[in-house]
Amino acid sequence: MTTPTPLLDANQVNALLERAFPGIGDGGPKVTLVSPGRVRIVRPYGEGLLRPGGVISGPTLMSLADTAAYALVLAHVGDQLMAVTSQLAMNFLRGAKPGDLHAEAEMLRLGRRLATCDVRIWTEGPERLAAQANVTYALPG
Amino acid sequence: MTTPTPLLDANQVNALLERAFPGIGDGGPKVTLVSPGRVRIVRPYGEGLLRPGGVISGPTLMSLADTAAYALVLAHVGDQLMAVTSQLAMNFLRGAKPGDLHAEAEMLRLGRRLATCDVRIWTEGPERLAAQANVTYALPG
Amino acid sequence: MTTPTPLLDANQVNALLERAFPGIGDGGPKVTLVSPGRVRIVRPYGEGLLRPGGVISGPTLMSLADTAAYALVLAHVGDQLMAVTSQLAMNFLRGAKPGDLHAEAEMLRLGRRLATCDVRIWTEGPERLAAQANVTYALPG
Amino acid sequence: MTTPTPLLDANQVNALLERAFPGIGDGGPKVTLVSPGRVRIVRPYGEGLLRPGGVISGPTLMSLADTAAYALVLAHVGDQLMAVTSQLAMNFLRGAKPGDLHAEAEMLRLGRRLATCDVRIWTEGPERLAAQANVTYALPG
Repeated sequence: MTTPTPLLDANQVNALLERAFPGIGDGGPKVTLVSPGRVRIVRPYGEGLLRPGGVISGPTLMSLADTAAYALVLAHVGDQLMAVTSQLAMNFLRGAKPGDLHAEAEMLRLGRRLATCDVRIWTEGPERLAAQANVTYALPG
Repeated sequence: MTTPTPLLDANQVNALLERAFPGIGDGGPKVTLVSPGRVRIVRPYGEGLLRPGGVISGPTLMSLADTAAYALVLAHVGDQLMAVTSQLAMNFLRGAKPGDLHAEAEMLRLGRRLATCDVRIWTEGPERLAAQANVTYALPG
Repeated sequence: MTTPTPLLDANQVNALLERAFPGIGDGGPKVTLVSPGRVRIVRPYGEGLLRPGGVISGPTLMSLADTAAYALVLAHVGDQLMAVTSQLAMNFLRGAKPGDLHAEAEMLRLGRRLATCDVRIWTEGPERLAAQANVTYALPG
Repeated sequence: MTTPTPLLDANQVNALLERAFPGIGDGGPKVTLVSPGRVRIVRPYGEGLLRPGGVISGPTLMSLADTAAYALVLAHVGDQLMAVTSQLAMNFLRGAKPGDLHAEAEMLRLGRRLATCDVRIWTEGPERLAAQANVTYALPG
């Protein structure tokens, strides 16, 4: 069986994110659920996230995808803040209407050196994805 | 609701693939299941698919991902053989042991101009993915 | 010949960026050069761009890649602020040491509907790339 | 200075490719030039490479991109046939008219564990690219 077992719960992952990015707890993304091979994360809607056209900006979505993958990795490997993104590929599927941003990240493979994740992001609902990303993290040696 | 409804069944998609790639029916990939927003496809194992190390070669996996996405698009838009791949991004997750190749393709978004698909490929079993791909097809005008 | 001819110069592109993202002119990225099929852009180093390990954060690099591609598109198609990112794929090549961020974006193809760009980013020097990205923009109508 | 120095010349790389893929020398891709951080490769046009619409098929282009990156890696790390593709992302830029396929691969970064390459492919001429790919190879330990 290859679905990995989490080592940390949502509160523990949020505490690590706060250590990595002090202040993230104030209005930044927050892990709401950790399950085997998956995490859910929510970023509350706020000012300054929009681009021309009145939709959530691309960098906001990319940043959330990166954080969701980081949270997924931390949940499954523990206190390894030095894990770094090695690759991120995002498809922007439709304009993300203003609203709280939800992301679900799934571990495709957790290897010794690399963790590969699939991330899906929406505001309106999970059946109307705003973006999908693949994110690869390099794990410290 | 945004999960698209198929227009064709597996036999009809296989007939279109045979028209697009004459001879594909002889040992090439075959659609086994069409459901809303998804297709399953199998390519029987055969000679000449291996690379050094005794695993299935990368181009074999990429070709299967491309065909799976094409089959998914055809199943949902009908007889549009001129749909062309505009982007393919594949993560090779682990060596694919010799065996029949299975792929499941899921429609992330079917727009007027672009169809974006997620494809997962395995030989040993779906819980041990060999590769994951995102494939975007441009739809004829 | 297929290298596209710019329609706007660096000042004109910067004015458009300011219209799209009011305030970007204060410490945000600035186009320094427009030439056929290319732009150069610089983002001055500032507080808050670092991640654990003391290197520039991934989202900072992704945001710069997106802005560089947007600037490249605007330079070659003119006042089309509604162009939107449809795909961004970034390879993080080495930790980006703190410093001004430089990006060079090159047009791989400017079609009617899609513009595909290659972007390279560095702080230390162009022979030590911190990241490379491919960015696709969908052009309005 | 970070542009890597080749260890092998074109003939030596072609000999390695023949060992990895017996028979590749008969009509398959051949390295024509090795220079610091770069290789050129040509695949002669042949039957069976076309898709509906009369252009070179996507899998043919992907396979060539993968081989070009493999050749680039071998040229710079030597006899390491067990290097494996870990990621390939390809943008199909325009239909590739029938003709000999040319590829140029450039090393973006050669690390201890990963080699990241940019590959550009054309038939008509280098100023009319048919496709661009980023390919990452994992190097044996």
